[in-house]
Amino acid sequence: MISALPAFSIPPLDMTLKASLQAKIDNKTKPLGALGQLENLALQLGLIQQTLSPALRRPLILVFAGDHGITEEGVSPYPQAVTQQMVLNFLAGGAGINVLTRLHGMEIKIVDAGVCHEFPPHPGLINAKIGMGTHNFLKMPAMSQQACMQALTQGYQLAQAEAGAGSNIMGFGEMGIGNTTSASALAAVLCDLPVAQCVGRGTGLDDAGVKHKADVIHQAIAHHQIESADTLTVLATFGGFEIVMMAGAMLGAAKRRCALLIDGFIATAALLTASRIAPAILDYCIFAHCSDEAGHALLLEQLKAKPLLNLGLRLGEGSGAALAYPLVQAAVNFLNEMASFDSANISRQGAT
Amino acid sequence: MISALPAFSIPPLDMTLKASLQAKIDNKTKPLGALGQLENLALQLGLIQQTLSPALRRPLILVFAGDHGITEEGVSPYPQAVTQQMVLNFLAGGAGINVLTRLHGMEIKIVDAGVCHEFPPHPGLINAKIGMGTHNFLKMPAMSQQACMQALTQGYQLAQAEAGAGSNIMGFGEMGIGNTTSASALAAVLCDLPVAQCVGRGTGLDDAGVKHKADVIHQAIAHHQIESADTLTVLATFGGFEIVMMAGAMLGAAKRRCALLIDGFIATAALLTASRIAPAILDYCIFAHCSDEAGHALLLEQLKAKPLLNLGLRLGEGSGAALAYPLVQAAVNFLNEMASFDSANISRQGAT
Repeated sequence: MISALPAFSIPPLDMTLKASLQAKIDNKTKPLGALGQLENLALQLGLIQQTLSPALRRPLILVFAGDHGITEEGVSPYPQAVTQQMVLNFLAGGAGINVLTRLHGMEIKIVDAGVCHEFPPHPGLINAKIGMGTHNFLKMPAMSQQACMQALTQGYQLAQAEAGAGSNIMGFGEMGIGNTTSASALAAVLCDLPVAQCVGRGTGLDDAGVKHKADVIHQAIAHHQIESADTLTVLATFGGFEIVMMAGAMLGAAKRRCALLIDGFIATAALLTASRIAPAILDYCIFAHCSDEAGHALLLEQLKAKPLLNLGLRLGEGSGAALAYPLVQAAVNFLNEMASFDSANISRQGAT
Repeated sequence: MISALPAFSIPPLDMTLKASLQAKIDNKTKPLGALGQLENLALQLGLIQQTLSPALRRPLILVFAGDHGITEEGVSPYPQAVTQQMVLNFLAGGAGINVLTRLHGMEIKIVDAGVCHEFPPHPGLINAKIGMGTHNFLKMPAMSQQACMQALTQGYQLAQAEAGAGSNIMGFGEMGIGNTTSASALAAVLCDLPVAQCVGRGTGLDDAGVKHKADVIHQAIAHHQIESADTLTVLATFGGFEIVMMAGAMLGAAKRRCALLIDGFIATAALLTASRIAPAILDYCIFAHCSDEAGHALLLEQLKAKPLLNLGLRLGEGSGAALAYPLVQAAVNFLNEMASFDSANISRQGAT
């Protein structure tokens, strides 16, 4: 079982600094707790970085792309070719995530985890292709266990390389026509949830399309008959290359004590699998938003996560992670820059 | 009645460009509607600025400060002196709102609408003092109708001056010990709501403190016996100088076709009064967040507003408005910068 693999283990946060961080937060010139979730974020970042003065360095969005054999079953209103077209759009700087990373001074790298297309080399593209798309998981496992381990390991290594190159906060996004179907199957099996609750409109299915997608997942789960406790087998059976590699990258980033910005439904499904491998990964996660995709709220609940934004987004690409990044900056900056009651000569609560 | 005053009238948005803006949004390389509330924002900004390519210029946070006679009744856990101390903190750059405006490249100006302190001149301070704090509205109206008109007019003029100096998006914040009591009274009277639903912890009251604050407001409303339809009288009776001047400034900003970033409970109470004077002001409003102060969610509901953030904030100062600003930038930038399906050669929904 993959959960026994020591290579992916993550140490839980060292809480030694918690009281000092909380005291620093409480001494800022504001009513106690008045910055709400930003205060939790400041505390978390201090603990992740083990300092009273955390700093964000080389913020990075990693977009993992892959194709899905399950698209043969008509689970998406868009043709599979859109995956490769969108990768080219990312590389040309024209997609939503490009606009957002430019706006917030974040770097972006596209990871080809398994798109059905050979891309020419590009400085913004990491070629980590495991295969030309997954198999149709209605008929056979999406990938072999060996391919699954390879995807996990490549993700694990590439995120660690980015940490080594100076990034200490990474957002995780994806592109892959058909990947909400894969994520829904993972969520249903790993959390033992009814399929209907895990399935949504994806890029824009109508009611009949959603029902068909749920039927396909039902049939696939019945066909494979696997146990939810065996994370690696579940991942290999229903995963996508981009989802598995993203899970590996999340593990690698947490291993290197980076903060992880978790995007939408698919990224959260990847994190779910990563958390089954190394539960302490959750200490490093900032949940960027709750998307409009049915099933995301449910997954967040399973992970006891409180997302920062709730804007009805369902774009993917890491867009929610990029949109939440300024809130993380705000949390770090208030902790570092805001005056204390003493330094600003402000009367405290209860003074007269 | 003040609602008859033609000087404060705001024209409703011209909707001529709506279809063209929506078509531009729908042609971006994303599933229809996938950017959720950002798409509504992009549409609204296009309509406010009457262009398919809106731009944000000289983003500005105006923080209105004033003192409140009602603090004599023990409605806040902080002493009144904190208002002036915090104004000095703003001017020194040490408060939460300073951190946020610096982070997001926004300007900040502090408006002394009626603090019990004479401040020396400062480039970041607008001296618009109407008086040295309001009267205790448990015993008499907080201000005269003449002072109320003066505060409204000064706000109206100063926001128009800022628009004239190039700002086309303004956030509205406040500082004033006791001002949640004033805002709760305004909300209860103007919306005919039960006082208990409009009263919260403010800067940190305990349960007994909240009950006392509600009792004070109850008594004051019973004492004055005014009609909710007479907005000017309600404002003069229960308002604060900073609240009234902020309402005037909101009217002035909308008059000049600026986008208005509405902060928390007190700013929303100011907007409520402004909307009774000129209902079309709501077309220009972006609701930044839903604060943790009880009563804010209720006011937002009354205004049919859907706020962008919900982070448990209760700091005031315009902090929520500043935190929401990057979302507005994101909306404008996706509209201006994102590729279209045609320009990026992306297949559309339903293509095969």
